[in-house]
Amino acid sequence: MSVYLHDIPLAQAQARLIEALQEANLWRVLGVESIPLDESALGRITAEPIWAKISSPHYHASAMDGFALRAVSTNGAMPSAPVNLFIGSEAQYVDTGDPLPEWANAVVPIENVESLDVNGQITNDIRSPKSIRIRAAVAPWSHVRPLGEDIVATQLVLPAGHTLRPADLGAIAASGHQNIRVARKPRVAILPTGTELVPIGSKLKAGDILEYNSLVMAAQIKVMGGDSTRFPITKDNFDSICERVLEAAQTHDLILLNAGSSAGAEDFSAKVVEKLGTLLVHGVAVRPGHPVILGTIDRGQQMVVNGSSSIVPIIGVPGYPVSAALTVDIFVEPIIAKWLGRPVLELPVETATLTRKLVSPPGDDDYVRVAVGKVGDKLLAAPLSRGAGVITSLVQADGLALIPSGVQGMEAGEQVRVHMYRTRAEIEKTIFCIGSHDMTLDLLAQFLAEHDRRFASANVGSQGGLVALRRGEAHMAGSHLLDPETGEYNISYIHKYMPSIPVKVIALVGRDQGLMVKKGNPKGIKSLGDLSNLGSGEKREVRTEQGRSVLFVNRQRGAGTRVLLDYHLNIMGIPVDSILGYTQEEYTHLGVAAAIASGRADCGLGIAAAAQALDLDFVPLFQERYDLVFPKEHAESNLLAPLFELIAAGQFRNSVSKLTGYDVSVMGRIILED
Amino acid sequence: MSVYLHDIPLAQAQARLIEALQEANLWRVLGVESIPLDESALGRITAEPIWAKISSPHYHASAMDGFALRAVSTNGAMPSAPVNLFIGSEAQYVDTGDPLPEWANAVVPIENVESLDVNGQITNDIRSPKSIRIRAAVAPWSHVRPLGEDIVATQLVLPAGHTLRPADLGAIAASGHQNIRVARKPRVAILPTGTELVPIGSKLKAGDILEYNSLVMAAQIKVMGGDSTRFPITKDNFDSICERVLEAAQTHDLILLNAGSSAGAEDFSAKVVEKLGTLLVHGVAVRPGHPVILGTIDRGQQMVVNGSSSIVPIIGVPGYPVSAALTVDIFVEPIIAKWLGRPVLELPVETATLTRKLVSPPGDDDYVRVAVGKVGDKLLAAPLSRGAGVITSLVQADGLALIPSGVQGMEAGEQVRVHMYRTRAEIEKTIFCIGSHDMTLDLLAQFLAEHDRRFASANVGSQGGLVALRRGEAHMAGSHLLDPETGEYNISYIHKYMPSIPVKVIALVGRDQGLMVKKGNPKGIKSLGDLSNLGSGEKREVRTEQGRSVLFVNRQRGAGTRVLLDYHLNIMGIPVDSILGYTQEEYTHLGVAAAIASGRADCGLGIAAAAQALDLDFVPLFQERYDLVFPKEHAESNLLAPLFELIAAGQFRNSVSKLTGYDVSVMGRIILED
Repeated sequence: MSVYLHDIPLAQAQARLIEALQEANLWRVLGVESIPLDESALGRITAEPIWAKISSPHYHASAMDGFALRAVSTNGAMPSAPVNLFIGSEAQYVDTGDPLPEWANAVVPIENVESLDVNGQITNDIRSPKSIRIRAAVAPWSHVRPLGEDIVATQLVLPAGHTLRPADLGAIAASGHQNIRVARKPRVAILPTGTELVPIGSKLKAGDILEYNSLVMAAQIKVMGGDSTRFPITKDNFDSICERVLEAAQTHDLILLNAGSSAGAEDFSAKVVEKLGTLLVHGVAVRPGHPVILGTIDRGQQMVVNGSSSIVPIIGVPGYPVSAALTVDIFVEPIIAKWLGRPVLELPVETATLTRKLVSPPGDDDYVRVAVGKVGDKLLAAPLSRGAGVITSLVQADGLALIPSGVQGMEAGEQVRVHMYRTRAEIEKTIFCIGSHDMTLDLLAQFLAEHDRRFASANVGSQGGLVALRRGEAHMAGSHLLDPETGEYNISYIHKYMPSIPVKVIALVGRDQGLMVKKGNPKGIKSLGDLSNLGSGEKREVRTEQGRSVLFVNRQRGAGTRVLLDYHLNIMGIPVDSILGYTQEEYTHLGVAAAIASGRADCGLGIAAAAQALDLDFVPLFQERYDLVFPKEHAESNLLAPLFELIAAGQFRNSVSKLTGYDVSVMGRIILED
Repeated sequence: MSVYLHDIPLAQAQARLIEALQEANLWRVLGVESIPLDESALGRITAEPIWAKISSPHYHASAMDGFALRAVSTNGAMPSAPVNLFIGSEAQYVDTGDPLPEWANAVVPIENVESLDVNGQITNDIRSPKSIRIRAAVAPWSHVRPLGEDIVATQLVLPAGHTLRPADLGAIAASGHQNIRVARKPRVAILPTGTELVPIGSKLKAGDILEYNSLVMAAQIKVMGGDSTRFPITKDNFDSICERVLEAAQTHDLILLNAGSSAGAEDFSAKVVEKLGTLLVHGVAVRPGHPVILGTIDRGQQMVVNGSSSIVPIIGVPGYPVSAALTVDIFVEPIIAKWLGRPVLELPVETATLTRKLVSPPGDDDYVRVAVGKVGDKLLAAPLSRGAGVITSLVQADGLALIPSGVQGMEAGEQVRVHMYRTRAEIEKTIFCIGSHDMTLDLLAQFLAEHDRRFASANVGSQGGLVALRRGEAHMAGSHLLDPETGEYNISYIHKYMPSIPVKVIALVGRDQGLMVKKGNPKGIKSLGDLSNLGSGEKREVRTEQGRSVLFVNRQRGAGTRVLLDYHLNIMGIPVDSILGYTQEEYTHLGVAAAIASGRADCGLGIAAAAQALDLDFVPLFQERYDLVFPKEHAESNLLAPLFELIAAGQFRNSVSKLTGYDVSVMGRIILED
């Protein structure tokens, strides 16, 4: 008995579904409807070519305010030999857009004539003179918009399969249409299933999962130009799911059955499809998203009219939110595109340099969410979290790097193709910050956004940030590295890790570092000494008041907080292996706080703001300085100018001073300038 | 007395309006509203940063179907030394997403264990065994999604001013929100004015102008994220317009007063703004669109609540449709962006080579609509019609080339910056065809669209097309150039105009050329001989039956039809200056037909299809061949492959054969292949 899926290549999976749709005569525009020509037509897709019913202009129109005349009557007019024309039979006043009289074939602009009164004298009544004087010959058809200048009746105005934009609506109106025939919007049923699912806004208990995939998928369908119905949550029950699927099939063109697509105990999707129709594919070699199901179900004949099919395609969408979203992009978009008759939406592709090594299963098409930044001339792709459950990685992603099947992984520095979510212009406005995380950076991002800059930060610890700067992989780094020898922050590390790069270093904040502990500090932790659990190795008594061991959670190697810990442990003579949990690592202050809040650890070193955020107690131990490090070339760039202005001005400083545990007195002080 | 506007530079005009809005405290997000978190939130702009209310996951969740256990209990497990764990106290089955028991700190996937029955024998009941056997140590926290893996409570989920995309909605839901605070949509009043305007769908008489600017502008506002109201047409009456403006001001944030913005007899906009408020700018040095009005009006105090302003900005939008659309893009978009708190929408910019000379007033920022194509490695920008009344030029434009103020014009071959409407990927799928126009090319465009190709054609006549190919400015050209010496089509011209370029030439169609005449042929025109009006020069009698002269309309120099005419006139010994209207030129067959339909000419040489289109009679004279000319490098490209397939297959041929006056028997025949 096998619980594994048999993953087939992506192209093969797509081909199987297309073939099934072709057999069911569903690989085509689904239907056509006539809609009124108003702004709601925006974004709809023309179902047929639009041919002009009338010409525009539909008459010879004056292109200026002026006088219509016969060009021939101005022959020979010169400054020294003006021609006079009588209003009425020889010339006639016309406003812009007025039709030319039958006998006229040109217009002279009002500013090019002298208006004369009944006595042949120049008059101020420039629009109603008795005659006009012209001192230059007028060419035939000058200042006239001839019939059909814009549109000639019967010409092609727009092809079929065209997505309507504002100007298109104008051209359609100008060509004599009042309605447009567009592709009917495909109707997509979204069926969330899972006993553990609860609706958005529910009060949660452990094991409850907020059902928001249907929301994301409905929004994706909307972007693609379809309509969707979000069905209520169905519990994991084979018969209930079958019933729901059949119900949805009556009135929808496509069914998305969310979760239950894997091969677990409560994964019914494959069985449901097998019972109600044909299971075409179960498992595709694509990550995230491989436990996808492609199939068709038969809704029965009662609804079949006009030769339409009784077959409804169904896609079993994996449950993890990133997998779900990518499955919809990969498998649903081409179907919606076909049903609407438009080209498949394609993201622009850029080539970027990978900032760190990526491992990938060799048989899979692997989509890796990346942050993209331009540093100097280099476009960089920094991989984000690869967890299929981490929806924020999709939110933060600037693009998707594809590691195609056949490639086992890629090294840092290799060129990777990135399908871009953001435009080149947006990327060029992005300040790429790497290194240690501090909450003030989130605030800084807010302020920068108001000054036409995006701020993308990746947390790799202080040392990681300096190394990245040396490699030219960021514009700036946040760092709070204490030198145990000098007691100074950052400078010696910068000289060590970035020896030949001119830098500017400014102080951002002073901040309290201390131990985050559970509310009420149940283990009575007061200092780093309380972490050492020497009893564990040498059978000594545990040292906390409650007589129980203390479980610590650490920051990752290279983080400034880790260096600070090691410095003080060294001074205090506490061996690191006497600390239970010393090897348990988190990558941010908030990660440490969350570990304590959840009970995974009793304490960890970090900043006050993180403790406050998760309602923990905080035992302050030291103040440290958090600096910003810039390679000189970026410090002087136009890109970063708004950042320096913000740090110099008062508004940002005020906002930071309101956070607990921060000292803004140092903000902006120049620490080092090469 | 001056009727001229005083145009001020664009930046200065924009600054004046912004200053007025700042003074009225209107240069900010207009308002905030809370909306439910559903797919209608898509595209809305966050009004505040969104901070996480809860963590996600909000508990330690199993990341796999498997068994939760204490990692320490698997220490030392090896293939040769398995560890057995009892279900209940030592291990517990969990589905993906289930919470870990309090005592567990790791999950082993179901496929990595042996399930044992009560007797210690392997059982098929893999999810409910009595114990499990493990042959490898499990690291702490492996296959667990720890609390806060995705989102940590209090963290920044999204900044203010962010446009919501599908994944964002998921992240907002995951962070515990049920509603979102977004910027209120600005309300824009669109007031079409003009006595000559009639609503879309009206039966037209000369002088009527279809009012569709309000439709285009409403669609533009929608794209920008605002709401609009399209008011009924107001006639050109000062008091009526004032009344309408005041009415609109009560319930809108911005008023767009369309047309009447110039200085003509019925241009009331400036006077209206002066009466009801402050005229800030009348005339901006930007083309198209210079007679724009910027101002503010005072709606009075009755509606003013919560400290909001009684000032409403008003923009007098020029009447020509291209001017109107560009005015909205240039002046309205920055205001809407500010009111929504989002960055200004910016088109990506590409640098392209101009295909022909452009003249531009030196003081103006001049926006030129261009078709953009990539031919070989060169990105080319081909200027389209510059008429502000030609809305189809906006429809066909792939971008806007900016000729900045200070530059008097640009030469062919110069590099120009193009603000792109289309993506690079779309441009790379575009077949750029230049030369002589034929209606079958419109059909071909339709067929190509179904094969993932765009087809852009520019009509410059047959010779112009060959010259463009020599310059590397197109992938192909349509040509029907008769060699008067050999009676052959195209070959000698290709050798003359493209001497050193290997080409492939295939026949597309044979088509009838003849004289288009008014319905019923009132002048009884039967042959080219009837065009000659020798009487005009030497007092000879006019030669048509009705005793009246025949007015001809010609094609432009270099057009194949023009060559054909000259060839036959030469054979028949008819001097060109004996033909009245010989110098009157049109650039397409349909243009010639329209000239005849409108009475601007009595006849012209062209193809049957054009005559049929405009309900003209047709006097067939000759059959000619229309060929497609390809430089060899493009003929063999992947880009053009679908075109050759279409010409070889039957479907396109069938469609063409249904058009009047076409002979498809030659289609696809190779005429020349170097």
